[in-house]
Amino acid sequence: MKKIRVGIIGTGFMGRTHTTAYKNVTNIFGDEVVPELVIVADVVEGAAKAFAEKYGYKRWTTDWKKVVSDPEVDLVDISVPNVYHCPIAIEAAKNKKDILCEKPLAMSADEAIEATHIVEEAGVITAMGFNYLRNPIQSYVKELIASGKLGRVVNFRGMFDQDFNNDPEQMHEWRMLKKESASGALGDLASHTISLSQYLVGDISEVCGMTQIIVHERPDPKDPSKMLPVENDDLVQFLFTYENGAMGAIFSNRLASGRKVALGYEIQMTNGCIVYNQERQNEVQIYHHDDDKRERGFKTVLIAPGHGDYGKFYGGAGIGLGYADQKTIEEYHVLKHVAERKPSEINFRFGMKVMQVIDAVLESAATHKWVSIEKVK
Amino acid sequence: MKKIRVGIIGTGFMGRTHTTAYKNVTNIFGDEVVPELVIVADVVEGAAKAFAEKYGYKRWTTDWKKVVSDPEVDLVDISVPNVYHCPIAIEAAKNKKDILCEKPLAMSADEAIEATHIVEEAGVITAMGFNYLRNPIQSYVKELIASGKLGRVVNFRGMFDQDFNNDPEQMHEWRMLKKESASGALGDLASHTISLSQYLVGDISEVCGMTQIIVHERPDPKDPSKMLPVENDDLVQFLFTYENGAMGAIFSNRLASGRKVALGYEIQMTNGCIVYNQERQNEVQIYHHDDDKRERGFKTVLIAPGHGDYGKFYGGAGIGLGYADQKTIEEYHVLKHVAERKPSEINFRFGMKVMQVIDAVLESAATHKWVSIEKVK
Amino acid sequence: MKKIRVGIIGTGFMGRTHTTAYKNVTNIFGDEVVPELVIVADVVEGAAKAFAEKYGYKRWTTDWKKVVSDPEVDLVDISVPNVYHCPIAIEAAKNKKDILCEKPLAMSADEAIEATHIVEEAGVITAMGFNYLRNPIQSYVKELIASGKLGRVVNFRGMFDQDFNNDPEQMHEWRMLKKESASGALGDLASHTISLSQYLVGDISEVCGMTQIIVHERPDPKDPSKMLPVENDDLVQFLFTYENGAMGAIFSNRLASGRKVALGYEIQMTNGCIVYNQERQNEVQIYHHDDDKRERGFKTVLIAPGHGDYGKFYGGAGIGLGYADQKTIEEYHVLKHVAERKPSEINFRFGMKVMQVIDAVLESAATHKWVSIEKVK
Amino acid sequence: MKKIRVGIIGTGFMGRTHTTAYKNVTNIFGDEVVPELVIVADVVEGAAKAFAEKYGYKRWTTDWKKVVSDPEVDLVDISVPNVYHCPIAIEAAKNKKDILCEKPLAMSADEAIEATHIVEEAGVITAMGFNYLRNPIQSYVKELIASGKLGRVVNFRGMFDQDFNNDPEQMHEWRMLKKESASGALGDLASHTISLSQYLVGDISEVCGMTQIIVHERPDPKDPSKMLPVENDDLVQFLFTYENGAMGAIFSNRLASGRKVALGYEIQMTNGCIVYNQERQNEVQIYHHDDDKRERGFKTVLIAPGHGDYGKFYGGAGIGLGYADQKTIEEYHVLKHVAERKPSEINFRFGMKVMQVIDAVLESAATHKWVSIEKVK
Repeated sequence: MKKIRVGIIGTGFMGRTHTTAYKNVTNIFGDEVVPELVIVADVVEGAAKAFAEKYGYKRWTTDWKKVVSDPEVDLVDISVPNVYHCPIAIEAAKNKKDILCEKPLAMSADEAIEATHIVEEAGVITAMGFNYLRNPIQSYVKELIASGKLGRVVNFRGMFDQDFNNDPEQMHEWRMLKKESASGALGDLASHTISLSQYLVGDISEVCGMTQIIVHERPDPKDPSKMLPVENDDLVQFLFTYENGAMGAIFSNRLASGRKVALGYEIQMTNGCIVYNQERQNEVQIYHHDDDKRERGFKTVLIAPGHGDYGKFYGGAGIGLGYADQKTIEEYHVLKHVAERKPSEINFRFGMKVMQVIDAVLESAATHKWVSIEKVK
Repeated sequence: MKKIRVGIIGTGFMGRTHTTAYKNVTNIFGDEVVPELVIVADVVEGAAKAFAEKYGYKRWTTDWKKVVSDPEVDLVDISVPNVYHCPIAIEAAKNKKDILCEKPLAMSADEAIEATHIVEEAGVITAMGFNYLRNPIQSYVKELIASGKLGRVVNFRGMFDQDFNNDPEQMHEWRMLKKESASGALGDLASHTISLSQYLVGDISEVCGMTQIIVHERPDPKDPSKMLPVENDDLVQFLFTYENGAMGAIFSNRLASGRKVALGYEIQMTNGCIVYNQERQNEVQIYHHDDDKRERGFKTVLIAPGHGDYGKFYGGAGIGLGYADQKTIEEYHVLKHVAERKPSEINFRFGMKVMQVIDAVLESAATHKWVSIEKVK
Repeated sequence: MKKIRVGIIGTGFMGRTHTTAYKNVTNIFGDEVVPELVIVADVVEGAAKAFAEKYGYKRWTTDWKKVVSDPEVDLVDISVPNVYHCPIAIEAAKNKKDILCEKPLAMSADEAIEATHIVEEAGVITAMGFNYLRNPIQSYVKELIASGKLGRVVNFRGMFDQDFNNDPEQMHEWRMLKKESASGALGDLASHTISLSQYLVGDISEVCGMTQIIVHERPDPKDPSKMLPVENDDLVQFLFTYENGAMGAIFSNRLASGRKVALGYEIQMTNGCIVYNQERQNEVQIYHHDDDKRERGFKTVLIAPGHGDYGKFYGGAGIGLGYADQKTIEEYHVLKHVAERKPSEINFRFGMKVMQVIDAVLESAATHKWVSIEKVK
Repeated sequence: MKKIRVGIIGTGFMGRTHTTAYKNVTNIFGDEVVPELVIVADVVEGAAKAFAEKYGYKRWTTDWKKVVSDPEVDLVDISVPNVYHCPIAIEAAKNKKDILCEKPLAMSADEAIEATHIVEEAGVITAMGFNYLRNPIQSYVKELIASGKLGRVVNFRGMFDQDFNNDPEQMHEWRMLKKESASGALGDLASHTISLSQYLVGDISEVCGMTQIIVHERPDPKDPSKMLPVENDDLVQFLFTYENGAMGAIFSNRLASGRKVALGYEIQMTNGCIVYNQERQNEVQIYHHDDDKRERGFKTVLIAPGHGDYGKFYGGAGIGLGYADQKTIEEYHVLKHVAERKPSEINFRFGMKVMQVIDAVLESAATHKWVSIEKVK
């Protein structure tokens, strides 16, 4: 058993979700690594205090600097708005703290590169909160692709569509303004698809994309009689090339009528195919070209023991995990990486590469040209 | 805020699952009702002690009688093997404790009737652990049927199929012996379908069924070179009539190759149809005959705010609940019923009626005749 | 090349469908067997004449006896209402004509038995128009079951649901009266499911069923202000046992909101499972328990060369057959059986057994008891 | 009744398919327009003669010029390899014959433009053999989009994937050489998706694409020990903009393991969504954002009376059409356009626009840039 002392910054949806996940880690994974909830920070005093009491953090503060410098903290958990991710992470690294940071890593690729260099030089363990990668099905898909049984990847087609903003009467949000969020659907949704794409297939080296605003203004939530402009992409689509030569494309529409959590992909390979959609997060479609000629077909495989960590939850296939369980798996692995001082694959450098793709797509959309992605050392 | 003090009996899979659920109740539902974990019992001393420490129960014991008589306990949670359900429940009722009991309620309809009469006379709140009924989708389906929008039910076709026992080499289990478990697939699996059927449509009044053993003997887990007999049904199918005149049928095969958690139904109504399968627990198929003639079709509806308690978990549709979340919902409602002194719909009487159907099917299979179900006062 | 001379009786939907199929046989199957359209009969003179002209029959008549006795006719095609099937078939057999008869064979099991004995004694080739059995996918399923790769059948669950009669305002039809049609959904729809069941798995030996009328009266099409009674089953469900010991059940609802041509089954086997639905007639779901543990799942197999006669239509999988193509396959095989003097598996005896099941279900529903099916020599 | 006299050129798969379709037209659509099969041409004398005899053409010839100049011919049906399409069409137009031409119209956009101008000046009726557009479901989708009920289109995502060439050992084909077929998957498969896209949504004005050869050489069918180069795209993907401002993308992989006839699309609209795949050609998925909030979901709508010409085939929904039925519908409409002297929407100009998109994608792939499509008068 190894104890990891956690300091968390942020008490919103993600702060709660991470905390609940920490509390569930030992229920599912036993006592190998045990989180100890030490301190929570929130700029709103009442929020910090109530959160500490409700979830059992020993201390609370309104100053995140007290968390990153707390000698009793091993792991700093960054669950605040995007604009604070890198500044906090850099400070945490200076204090030699390990870091779990929510996605996206930064406001731009440049900021992400800088932060990555700093944490790498500091030698701290880092991890990104790309929870969808933690679905045990993705672990299995990654393994299946790597096994070569389905040949090599030739085409990745991915998307993340949602319709929560479908009604034009729906209120304006901060994430629709450029200075608060450089991109819209691209950074908010497609970033997950990019992460899946790079996690499963490899790094992207060149992109060509286009964006569109569908609803140009929305009511100001403070005064719905006034309209505020929507400044970034409701819809994005881009083609890309992987370093390994395969081709791909990603779509995202945050006004996609009918799609709720349609984060998914079709991975076409030379000897098979894999299809996934987060709306049915407990199954995956797999096709083997080597099957008997008269019985070739896409198989609907339900989540099962043998797929990543699923067996830790249930002994039988198909019992079904939910969104929250992905976070429990994520937090377990982060704690384990910290305990074992082993780098995570889903670290700051991984998050940095996602940011590079996002920035390249924005540049491509602005210039109407293909844009290469530089290889960062 | 109202505190409910819990004493739990049993530390196996269900004991753990209930306890984790109690701990998640306030994360999801806020502070309306707050469980306080008081005491845990297990015949194995080490198990009781370790469980208390891990989950934060204040006390532990090896004697369940100390739980049912503990003056600090409001709610007795019965998570032990079936044979102990009624004896413990009866003792708890005598001590005026409210009760959450895992399914099935009893070893036979007669035992269930007796226990039901005792708890009702004692005036305690009771609830059964039919967790699948707690899926917010079932709340919505119940509401939709009751609304009359789809007309009236004419045919219910349900099943619960699993293939965990598919391999004949798989070890023998206690649940395959008649004295430990009167029925096989019927009581273990089909009981869930019966509960869904009665919860959604109404009480069953007459049945005609048949059972079959598919694999007649299995290796003794203590000495796999020896074979032990399988004494109860691997496979069961029965027709039935509801009191309201509708017809139905239920199937269950515990060796159903390919089915993992195939608990489901098709409910045919005079003006629509509803189809559900637990393997895709976050969606339901709904058909409205009143739709435009050229656009009639089964709709795949993803779980959404407005379906039971789903909105307490997530603000957006389709994010997805898992098995464990059903138990959190269950425990919340049990605590609330206790706090408000309001009877639960899924109480001992409900569990008793499920037992009556099971016993009637067994009798029908044995006599090769239709069997009526008596109305118990 | 062998010519088979056809005389057809009936010019309704089935007469047209059979004739179009005869004309397509050589387009698809080449010149192995070539139908020659000799004579058509219809009680309505104008209909017979117009039909002969349109489709190229050499002669026409209003008297079916002229068809069954025509010396130039080899094959008598019976495409008239059910009540005339046996009388015509018996006459045709007396004239040593081979026979293709639309389903159902007879008005009752007794009539079917009599007709079967007569045609068998006459030594003529007979075939029944159970077109759904001619889908190349059913040929493959039959072969797959027989191969033993999926073990043995333990449970067949089938249905045929349709909603063409869903609206209570819809007009009354002759088929809703007992004297014109002994049963309703059972004979009209479920008969197809019974035929699939017996074709794929084996003969049924015992049944227990129940029926229900959902809409008790409907407007008289001649005077919609008057209501006529519905006398036979809108809804039927029955359990059964196969001679080989497997169990099964069949459902049919002719007012099943949402179901259009929902003729289907789930065949549970000891080592696999097969699922089919006519609404997706170009695909079948197959599960192999022997697949790799982490990749077990139901495969959606599209119709492909290697499935029955599909390869005669198209060289590639999934191009898709329609309803009419099944009839082309049926007529080809009937002609071939006639040409080769080989008995068809889907002959009068086969049709007789379907009638026996239907009558047994009616008796069971009337007596509320299990009913055995006698083995006819 | 109006007779249209047909002269066909080509006796391969398409010649047979068109001829069978002509023969089925009156079976399905009655006697409104009646094709008369006059003359067939094939360079191989035996083929022409046998075809004429088998299908009932009055005359045959080895010289296509005799068909286009035959005074008894109204409609010239061009069912020969692509390279002959335009030369024959131009000659037919000079002879004032109406024309049905198989797709693609030409070998290049330039050739297509020239041919289009010639036929338009000649004032003849023209039609292209894009049979997939004739599925009654596409008629309904077109109508539904035009109705505005689902708002306006914002994103079209289409594909046509097949795996008939998946095995690298499979023989080389003429269509893999540039001089015989400028493009591969793009012209052969994606052209169908482009046609659907322009038929349903509107004209494409700008594209950016990329192509890839996956298997670089294949065995020479004449001498499998030798390898021949594959010169055109196995895989293509491109983004595009519609003139109406909507965005889209199309994919095609002729080595797409698992896909058989995966011609499909997802059309995202501001108030709904439509999803189609030819592998399930008798159904379409439709989503209405205006549905009750708790019952929003994609509806699986089976083909039904009210969808284009389906009602001419069957009175009930879901009975199911096959590939051949689309050709019957196509030929009926071509004959009708000829009879009524009304221009078809799927005419040479339509085919020309598809060719323009194809050529623009090839240019874009070669130059690695966005390419505009000029508006041809």
